[in-house]
Amino acid sequence: MNNSDRFLEILEAEFDRHSYGENPLELYEPIKYIMALGGKRFRPLMTLLATSIYSEDFSIAIKPAMAVEVFHNFTLMHDDIMDRAPLRRGKPTVHEKWNANTAILSGDVMLIRAYDLLLDVPKEKLRQVLLRFNQTAAEVCEGQQLDMNFETRQNVTEEEYLEMIRLKTSVLLGFALELGGILGGADAESIQMLYSAGENMGIGFQLKDDLLDVYGDPSKFGKQVGGDIIANKKTFLLIEALSKAEGHLKTELEKWLMLENFNNNEKVEAIRNIYEALDIKAFTEQKINEYFTRGLSNLNELKIENPRKETLLNFVKQLVEREK
Amino acid sequence: MNNSDRFLEILEAEFDRHSYGENPLELYEPIKYIMALGGKRFRPLMTLLATSIYSEDFSIAIKPAMAVEVFHNFTLMHDDIMDRAPLRRGKPTVHEKWNANTAILSGDVMLIRAYDLLLDVPKEKLRQVLLRFNQTAAEVCEGQQLDMNFETRQNVTEEEYLEMIRLKTSVLLGFALELGGILGGADAESIQMLYSAGENMGIGFQLKDDLLDVYGDPSKFGKQVGGDIIANKKTFLLIEALSKAEGHLKTELEKWLMLENFNNNEKVEAIRNIYEALDIKAFTEQKINEYFTRGLSNLNELKIENPRKETLLNFVKQLVEREK
Repeated sequence: MNNSDRFLEILEAEFDRHSYGENPLELYEPIKYIMALGGKRFRPLMTLLATSIYSEDFSIAIKPAMAVEVFHNFTLMHDDIMDRAPLRRGKPTVHEKWNANTAILSGDVMLIRAYDLLLDVPKEKLRQVLLRFNQTAAEVCEGQQLDMNFETRQNVTEEEYLEMIRLKTSVLLGFALELGGILGGADAESIQMLYSAGENMGIGFQLKDDLLDVYGDPSKFGKQVGGDIIANKKTFLLIEALSKAEGHLKTELEKWLMLENFNNNEKVEAIRNIYEALDIKAFTEQKINEYFTRGLSNLNELKIENPRKETLLNFVKQLVEREK
Repeated sequence: MNNSDRFLEILEAEFDRHSYGENPLELYEPIKYIMALGGKRFRPLMTLLATSIYSEDFSIAIKPAMAVEVFHNFTLMHDDIMDRAPLRRGKPTVHEKWNANTAILSGDVMLIRAYDLLLDVPKEKLRQVLLRFNQTAAEVCEGQQLDMNFETRQNVTEEEYLEMIRLKTSVLLGFALELGGILGGADAESIQMLYSAGENMGIGFQLKDDLLDVYGDPSKFGKQVGGDIIANKKTFLLIEALSKAEGHLKTELEKWLMLENFNNNEKVEAIRNIYEALDIKAFTEQKINEYFTRGLSNLNELKIENPRKETLLNFVKQLVEREK
């Protein structure tokens, strides 16, 4: 078993064992529920992998790594209310299974419990970790607000979109790696490099998500292929298409975006054809590559010769290759 | 100007000056809005008054005291969504003025900003302060959940009700005083005593709120007198009446609770008569007195001869006498 599999097993066992609280049941059941829905746990894994580059004792990072995952799931619980999402990982969302009030309040407690788990860092590092966590957490909220703002805006630029996904998803990945570096005892420059690696990879992952929604293999992709197109979601691809389309392509694109009654497959096909004509797929792949390359070179630049650096690199490369 | 007026002035100036963040506007405007609605700020005042008993330099407690107030207002923002409250301090609630999504997300950021303000404590006290704050914050959420649970329950015992208000409102008052003690450098026993004082006073204040809703002077009481009666709110008075009423009083009480169409004044009058017959007013006043007496004696027991202890005592006594 390689290190990342071993770390995943340890994390899952810790999550199983962990108590978020007991009474009242209505408050704590939804936390257990969402945490048990699974997910790849790659944020806390990255924390542990980063710690283990610099320290023989990765176990000091387990609770703080869990904090990152609990925080991430808190944002999912609240985002799902805001997005009126019925399903999360194929199961009813908390506000659907219980109600919105429960999802608000259980989410609030999850955020507090994330802070509890973060307290498990060495005393002399607590302030630094919390300062960075607070900044990250606020940025994630800023990203979610921008995402909601974009829904009702006509024009969103590529730059604005990239900044939104940086805040909404990348900074937490950056923090996950940075936290691992801080706890492992890395120097300030390496800690910054780990953060940048996570930030770059995170943007790459989100762009890849956008791409897979349109071009993913339906047998491998977890969600409905074309879901974003059907919902007019302002993805990187749509934003590029909107900025590049001219003449009849522009008319055609705007027609499909305005249409209220349509056949799903027809719309997906039509938008795909527009993307094809505008070379959006290749452009997006190039962007993804750019961010992944930057992220990987951030990791390569870490000034340490330790085989465990390879473990982190291999883990990240495998995430890069995923098709779902 | 006495100390508590001076502290209030300093606090208000700090709140005015404080930035919770700027972009996106939609996220941070609601925070400025709710914080500017006012309120008596008696939680942070208690922190400063407690610090100043033990330390010449109360200024070290300003930011942490503000954290308590920001946290309190975060709970108001989220509770108002859950309670579908249209007004807060006579102004539209955040979810009414903007929408529920905004109130959820701005609230989340407020909680994070409260943690930011708490980081402003001496390094060696940070872990202790955060441990206690986390526990308090989770308990406040537990209290809110219990409060919501009680709405749909037939029978709530006096004991359950007291525990609910202890969690929902008292523990934060306890923490406000405890925090002041910790920052001022009080010994462990005094810190515990300050907490107990806040806890006891807090229960007294909530019971007094319940009482004033029924017996308050309409010209002094901020809200509609009888509002809880009209809404069938399970207050201490109603819970006592439900447990004590027998025979025709019980029938009469249950009739009014079931009635869907009624004249407000008639219902308030009828329930008041039932309370009268069951001696609920005197019983509630006695309970309030009990908690206030306990709280004040906790403060009196603080082993310190310092005129600033009198300032805190006088401030608390003045809160006890309030009629709105």
